[in-house]
Amino acid sequence: MTNKSNIVELMHGIGNVANEAARQLTTASTKSKNAALLGAAKAIRCNQNRIMSENAKDMAFGQEKGLTRAMLDRLSLDEKRIAAIAKGLTDIIALPDPIGVITDAWERPNGLKIERRRTPLGVIGVIYESRPNVTADAGALCLKAGNAAILRGGSESFHSSGAILDCLAEGLREAGLPTAAIQRVPTRDRAAVGEMLTMVDHIDVIVPRGGKSLVERISAESRVPLFKHLEGICHTYVTADADPEMAGNIVLNAKMRRTGICGATETLLIDRAARAQLSRIVDKLTEAGCEVRGDARTQEADQRIVPASDEDWTTEYLDSIISVRTVDGLPAAIEHIAEHGSNHTEAIITENSATAETFLNEVDSAIVMVNTSTQFADGGEFGMGAEIGISTGKLHARGPVGLEQLTSMKYVVRGSGQCRP
Amino acid sequence: MTNKSNIVELMHGIGNVANEAARQLTTASTKSKNAALLGAAKAIRCNQNRIMSENAKDMAFGQEKGLTRAMLDRLSLDEKRIAAIAKGLTDIIALPDPIGVITDAWERPNGLKIERRRTPLGVIGVIYESRPNVTADAGALCLKAGNAAILRGGSESFHSSGAILDCLAEGLREAGLPTAAIQRVPTRDRAAVGEMLTMVDHIDVIVPRGGKSLVERISAESRVPLFKHLEGICHTYVTADADPEMAGNIVLNAKMRRTGICGATETLLIDRAARAQLSRIVDKLTEAGCEVRGDARTQEADQRIVPASDEDWTTEYLDSIISVRTVDGLPAAIEHIAEHGSNHTEAIITENSATAETFLNEVDSAIVMVNTSTQFADGGEFGMGAEIGISTGKLHARGPVGLEQLTSMKYVVRGSGQCRP
Repeated sequence: MTNKSNIVELMHGIGNVANEAARQLTTASTKSKNAALLGAAKAIRCNQNRIMSENAKDMAFGQEKGLTRAMLDRLSLDEKRIAAIAKGLTDIIALPDPIGVITDAWERPNGLKIERRRTPLGVIGVIYESRPNVTADAGALCLKAGNAAILRGGSESFHSSGAILDCLAEGLREAGLPTAAIQRVPTRDRAAVGEMLTMVDHIDVIVPRGGKSLVERISAESRVPLFKHLEGICHTYVTADADPEMAGNIVLNAKMRRTGICGATETLLIDRAARAQLSRIVDKLTEAGCEVRGDARTQEADQRIVPASDEDWTTEYLDSIISVRTVDGLPAAIEHIAEHGSNHTEAIITENSATAETFLNEVDSAIVMVNTSTQFADGGEFGMGAEIGISTGKLHARGPVGLEQLTSMKYVVRGSGQCRP
Repeated sequence: MTNKSNIVELMHGIGNVANEAARQLTTASTKSKNAALLGAAKAIRCNQNRIMSENAKDMAFGQEKGLTRAMLDRLSLDEKRIAAIAKGLTDIIALPDPIGVITDAWERPNGLKIERRRTPLGVIGVIYESRPNVTADAGALCLKAGNAAILRGGSESFHSSGAILDCLAEGLREAGLPTAAIQRVPTRDRAAVGEMLTMVDHIDVIVPRGGKSLVERISAESRVPLFKHLEGICHTYVTADADPEMAGNIVLNAKMRRTGICGATETLLIDRAARAQLSRIVDKLTEAGCEVRGDARTQEADQRIVPASDEDWTTEYLDSIISVRTVDGLPAAIEHIAEHGSNHTEAIITENSATAETFLNEVDSAIVMVNTSTQFADGGEFGMGAEIGISTGKLHARGPVGLEQLTSMKYVVRGSGQCRP
């Protein structure tokens, strides 16, 4: 399967059956979608051994390929992780079905009754890296929102994903839904991704999940719209009005709770008038093993701070490193974020509510926060249930992409013979 | 200005100042936006003579170029049309400002208060054909929703659009808003459009307004997301349960009220069991001067019907022609629409509410209707105020694109020191 025309044929075949499945899913009941998820969760629990033996093949392939320890860790599945995958599916059962919800309804003077109603989007493509659990999570979220999914996982997780997909298919079959509701691209050939990105007649939106280079490559090529974020260069701005204790705790949490997630703070902006708070914050960060890089003024204020280069202001470390910059007041902080940020998540620490409101109004990011940690930038933490990703785009979905964001809408108009004058 | 690198430079310059204007508009007050619209309306009334003399240049150019009478009519401006343009601007003042509206708010168990708030989209590109009034309408709608606009009108309306744009700039200046909030591409060079379609870092969405060939060309090339519809192949389905009087009136209105709009019905689906109603409907249509083309079974039922070819089922006539097909029941009607429709607007005429609900649920169009005319497919008729177009896409905007659809959103999170466990 390396021949270009074979790949085109394969992908268009997948696209056609996905469209057909999507049409059937438009009217699938909540009950049958939930039954499919429950059946899939059961199948995953029952097929634990098979999933692990398929995962062993992937691990052997990964070791041969020389994957890093971190990548191998993301790839590996054990009893606990498989149980978590099954639990993830049953969690989605508990979420309310967004489809058919009437989000707005009104009557016109001529008696026409109009409502806006949530409908499925159609077909959603998901392109992801090595974590095999995404196969279940993403497939299940798309299904619950009435969409067909075309999944393209990393080649490293090829066998594990295949075994998980079989379990999803079992659930769909038992529930009387088309198994084509969740398909995956059954080849490691990269040309399949290239083809997927051109399939505007088959795929309504693609969600790329992975590192910056994956997302950049997909953004440059894709003709299909994307829900994506390239990177999370998140800022926390500590003002002179900040409660010092709170500022220290929040900055530590925002940076160090988990350094590898997109909502981790990468740059601390410290107001010139708040420099007295700097050493206390640096104490906490260095104690936790964080390297602190700063501009000349922060270095003057604290000797432990090493020099930051211009590049630091636009770097998503995803590691125990933070950059710190002294800013002269709120407008300078907002300006720094506009220039260097990635429109993901930014927080201000202040007891002054006017300052807070200006920051919340003027910072143009998907999520803006006051007096809390940027690590809360997460669909689950927002109460939206599971998320398929976080979007920094401004169209359709911004911020966490949960069930609701995986839907479209239609207008339903009920008349009694009205003609337009 | 025909050199490629000059065009790139020109367009990027326009993009940069649009981005800067968009940043300023993010926090512009409703009052100042309305003041700009009022000032622009006044300027249009005061500059009526200048607008007409610029329009005369366009008309001369159009006549020389050999534009059709219909195109020249769309292009020409007189006192009445200029007054209507000014009135259009003041109508937008009356619409509620969507920006800052909190569409949802909730509190998490940990005390975080989260709200979803409407924000501007950013920069909106509008590419349109000859009607010069679009310059004012589209610019004003973008402005009211806090967006900067980059307008690219047809080369035929170059001078008229320029004169109208000057009036918009006067309004913006008087209100203390950046005149770059509404710019136009100041060249007739088509390469400027090509460049616009690549400017993903400068333009958030493009609205192509025009015929199918314009929209097709833009869709094929654009890297920037679009709010668009290619065509409106709208259907009206008359069931056996339809009230005959109502069915006749609605079909006549849906087809003939105005044949040139996208919401006009192009295909009548008549249920086999409703064929007794056909002659009455054909009476009305032919009396109104409509040509009726049909499949073999409808021709059998009524001798006035001329043969339809396969092409007729996918043709947007925008003219006094209708295609009629006999279908065997509701599923066949839904199937015909799925296969031949353009996901714009479809109506069913029936007194049976179960039949109606199935149709409304299963037809996947932006607008689905029961017992009324597809000609109501319009933002104004829906009570949304003015619209910049109708979208048949499923992402972000579906159906009429009014002020609300020209916005994005952000999450605002207020804490009191919460750290993520």
